[in-house]
Amino acid sequence: MTDLGRWRAEALAQSVTDGSQTALSIVEDLLARLDAYDKVQPQIWISRMAPDQLRDAARAVDARVAAGERLPLAGVPFAVKDNIDVVGLDTTAACPAFAYTPQETATVVTRLLEAGAICVGKTNLDQFATGLNGTRSPYGIPRNAYNLAYVSGGSSAGSSVAVAAGLVAFALGTDTAGSGRVPAAFQHLIGFKPTKGRWSSKGLVPACRSQDCISVFTDTVADARLVDQVIAGFDADDAFSRAMHDTALNPARIGVPKPAQRVWFGDSQAEYLYERALERLATQADVIEIDIDFLNEAASLLYNGPWVAERTAAVSDLLERQPEAIDETVRGIVAQGKDISAVDLFRGIYRLAELQRQAEQMWASVDMLAFPTTGTTYRVAEMLAAPVALNSNLGRYTNFVNLLDMAAIAVPAGVRANGTGFGITLIGPASTDTGLMDAAEAYLAQAELPAPPSLDLEGKMERVRLAVVGAHLKDMPLHWQLTSREAQFVGAFETAQNYRLYAMADSTPPKPALVHSEDGAKIAVEVYELDVAAFGSFVAEVPAPLAIGTVTLADGSSVKGFVAEPRATIGAKDITHFGGWRAFVAGA
Amino acid sequence: MTDLGRWRAEALAQSVTDGSQTALSIVEDLLARLDAYDKVQPQIWISRMAPDQLRDAARAVDARVAAGERLPLAGVPFAVKDNIDVVGLDTTAACPAFAYTPQETATVVTRLLEAGAICVGKTNLDQFATGLNGTRSPYGIPRNAYNLAYVSGGSSAGSSVAVAAGLVAFALGTDTAGSGRVPAAFQHLIGFKPTKGRWSSKGLVPACRSQDCISVFTDTVADARLVDQVIAGFDADDAFSRAMHDTALNPARIGVPKPAQRVWFGDSQAEYLYERALERLATQADVIEIDIDFLNEAASLLYNGPWVAERTAAVSDLLERQPEAIDETVRGIVAQGKDISAVDLFRGIYRLAELQRQAEQMWASVDMLAFPTTGTTYRVAEMLAAPVALNSNLGRYTNFVNLLDMAAIAVPAGVRANGTGFGITLIGPASTDTGLMDAAEAYLAQAELPAPPSLDLEGKMERVRLAVVGAHLKDMPLHWQLTSREAQFVGAFETAQNYRLYAMADSTPPKPALVHSEDGAKIAVEVYELDVAAFGSFVAEVPAPLAIGTVTLADGSSVKGFVAEPRATIGAKDITHFGGWRAFVAGA
Repeated sequence: MTDLGRWRAEALAQSVTDGSQTALSIVEDLLARLDAYDKVQPQIWISRMAPDQLRDAARAVDARVAAGERLPLAGVPFAVKDNIDVVGLDTTAACPAFAYTPQETATVVTRLLEAGAICVGKTNLDQFATGLNGTRSPYGIPRNAYNLAYVSGGSSAGSSVAVAAGLVAFALGTDTAGSGRVPAAFQHLIGFKPTKGRWSSKGLVPACRSQDCISVFTDTVADARLVDQVIAGFDADDAFSRAMHDTALNPARIGVPKPAQRVWFGDSQAEYLYERALERLATQADVIEIDIDFLNEAASLLYNGPWVAERTAAVSDLLERQPEAIDETVRGIVAQGKDISAVDLFRGIYRLAELQRQAEQMWASVDMLAFPTTGTTYRVAEMLAAPVALNSNLGRYTNFVNLLDMAAIAVPAGVRANGTGFGITLIGPASTDTGLMDAAEAYLAQAELPAPPSLDLEGKMERVRLAVVGAHLKDMPLHWQLTSREAQFVGAFETAQNYRLYAMADSTPPKPALVHSEDGAKIAVEVYELDVAAFGSFVAEVPAPLAIGTVTLADGSSVKGFVAEPRATIGAKDITHFGGWRAFVAGA
Repeated sequence: MTDLGRWRAEALAQSVTDGSQTALSIVEDLLARLDAYDKVQPQIWISRMAPDQLRDAARAVDARVAAGERLPLAGVPFAVKDNIDVVGLDTTAACPAFAYTPQETATVVTRLLEAGAICVGKTNLDQFATGLNGTRSPYGIPRNAYNLAYVSGGSSAGSSVAVAAGLVAFALGTDTAGSGRVPAAFQHLIGFKPTKGRWSSKGLVPACRSQDCISVFTDTVADARLVDQVIAGFDADDAFSRAMHDTALNPARIGVPKPAQRVWFGDSQAEYLYERALERLATQADVIEIDIDFLNEAASLLYNGPWVAERTAAVSDLLERQPEAIDETVRGIVAQGKDISAVDLFRGIYRLAELQRQAEQMWASVDMLAFPTTGTTYRVAEMLAAPVALNSNLGRYTNFVNLLDMAAIAVPAGVRANGTGFGITLIGPASTDTGLMDAAEAYLAQAELPAPPSLDLEGKMERVRLAVVGAHLKDMPLHWQLTSREAQFVGAFETAQNYRLYAMADSTPPKPALVHSEDGAKIAVEVYELDVAAFGSFVAEVPAPLAIGTVTLADGSSVKGFVAEPRATIGAKDITHFGGWRAFVAGA
């Protein structure tokens, strides 16, 4: 099996510079990796350089190194999100009808190539960079490299997977509402989103032009710093480029959302991991709870307010000419912008100016924010079923950043049981980019995070935990329904104190009904874990009046489990005082 | 007659501070001046403090000075444009239906009052500050203090007249497209328009909120500097306020429009005065001709582009509820904004960003601009007849300044024969405000400008020069038509070389016809000057086939004069070789 371990730009460049390997040997390794991962997710790419083009590029780098050039990215393979121009590959923005052949390479890519990096190809994305999930592309759905059932995050979907899967050492994304951070969180990556205007946007297909940033995914903060050193700098050809000086950042006071304002969408693992991250941060700085209502309001301007029209402006020709060529969800979003008036937008601009003033006041009381990158993640199937609402949930903690002129770096902060990543984002005012990188390194140095799990190369099955209470208990008549589905025993637990147990009338085999009640007791249960498909078939066989719902355990956690319709207690015998079905059966 | 000489803030404050007069004595003088000028133009005010309120305010200042307070504006009377809130006076924005009673005084006014200045009242303006001419108000039309036939300039019309007429030492205006500069030019004033955000806009009725600046009219640059020192500074309550540091300005290279891009709308006096100003500037710096196409394009975004919708946003409630309450011309402008989409505005924002980039490039080659403030001026009657087109002409050299984030100071640069002022504006990049004041003082110190003419307290009649060629010559049968109209003899001249003279057939008394011809000669004429009304009645009596047109004199200048319809030469005798009617009559 080809090694798909992550690459690091700094180490690769060093090895080429010191002659311990050639750029050409890296490219041969690269080609093997690409072949291997094409069997898993070819759809992360929209176009790629031909093998011989890559070899030629490598030879050219080797020749420059041999000639004595000092190339900070000598021989480092990188990928480019397919809304950024690279001569030789069409730019599609994930919309075939929009595709064009660029005549000029984007400034950022030109700087990378000059520094010796090797462009591997163009990666898949949410069409027109409109989305945070990665499912909105006619070129296929890039999935989470660590659990193929889950979204990769977007819109820079393919770029994030390419780095996570070890195909390139870094990949350019873009980030308007979080597209360079959300996929980093889900796949245990560094996602660096510079201050607006720090990196040239020349050669970028606009999504929401005044708010767009090119960003980068890397394995380490050091690599993000290296890429930033190569790319950052004023570009007179980009009207939104800014000549800026680094602002010092001493993150002694770290702002976090007030607990009541932390929204997890039911993801208790994310909540837990965030609290652990804050504990780590608290060892280095004061953690200060702030009111984030105004940040949420700024966020709403982007996807629920007048800035939607900026997305419309970006694609208005195609939207008029050939609307059916646009992804249905994306079209639904961009079409809304046609009805927004300039008057609405001016009102939005005024409100944003006021919110920016509030942000300035916030920066007087905290030096940096440390927010969850997202509150949760979703399966691809879930996202496809509710593409707007769930996408919106993913942007909860990212949408406000560009509008309020902040820089951000997303860093890993733990792993969910399903292998997907949870991350936090460190956010600072404009031009604190390098300070944020320092802070990210300081956090990671003592966060004691586990290594990312192994890649999901075959499609991990989703696992579900189920509490059984009666005939499915070990050695009971229906226990075979679990064993035949390869359910694994997790443990014997008790429910929370507020349940009553009834022996149902006329049930064959005899079965209990577990009923939630304020006046209750703890009831013995057994918890099993089984694949999501097996779980589905199990639930399909549960007879009325029983049902599978949610059962709260004595430790406060929740699992799926047997519950009952109200009619289950008609003629039933209250057996709560036995403390469980097994005790009742033994004593009956 | 009450002295209506201009006041200077610095000198007044000094006199109160050193005890040579009291604020109360200044107020008594003020009240006499107000009374006197109310007989000329009461309509420059929309509301005023009562005499006793002014006396109370003066006594309070005198008490503070007596208590040892150092007040930089002790006892200095000032006026406030009536789109800026002052508690105690309603804010109307020159629209009675819009009027409200402010609960808080604008930040800038509060700072002036704290510095010892005395607020006299609220001045008339183009409604909602939409206009550059001063005729768009239901409270009457403030006219040029030096020639009542002419516009004062606007929108800060009343404020400019109040300073010119010596009623206050300075007056706050506002300036979005030139409203703080155009009236300064027309009335021989300093008009200082700070960088956007340098002066707080809190308490200002928005015209085009993202582009609005409060400005000031003064008699001297020193007074503008003094007011700036009191007012400038960050205001956290104003979302568009900016914390800024002064940028040094060394105006060694002064940018001026290429000659082909200088537009004078037929005003040869303005053209002449501008050239004299450039000669003066050239003694101190390199004068560099630049291409101003991109500045004109930026200007067009403001009044012919998506920023019109910002004006709509400012008055949209009233526009919906009670459109007839809005001045017809203003309504015509702001109503257009309803049809502008957010997509259009985003496109405008992108274009503006590109133009801003061009402006940055311009600032690499010149340090300061010295533009005409306006290309010409107009009579009130002319402006009322073509309120949009002529207003637009007035903004030719001012509209782009705020959109491109520049500071500006309008300074006098000469007097037209009709008494109205011509001015130039010195323009620099953001935060060069104090440097521009230095440059303005340096220019004025060696410009050798005449003092402003005396105020027009009765309505100067407009004078017209008329060339007569036949029966109206001195001692000829119709000469009485001139003497009865109090025409003044200017002189005997010759036409340019390309005229022929004919003795018309069947004309009683005998009259010639002057006909333009390439194959011609110089013809003797007499030039008379008469009031415009007298001229009008004279023209009314001219019989066919004669007419009053334009006659070119031998020195190249043009005057009104007798011309003829083609039929005038039917049966006529060519008498060109006589060189004039008098010679023909003598020799015939």
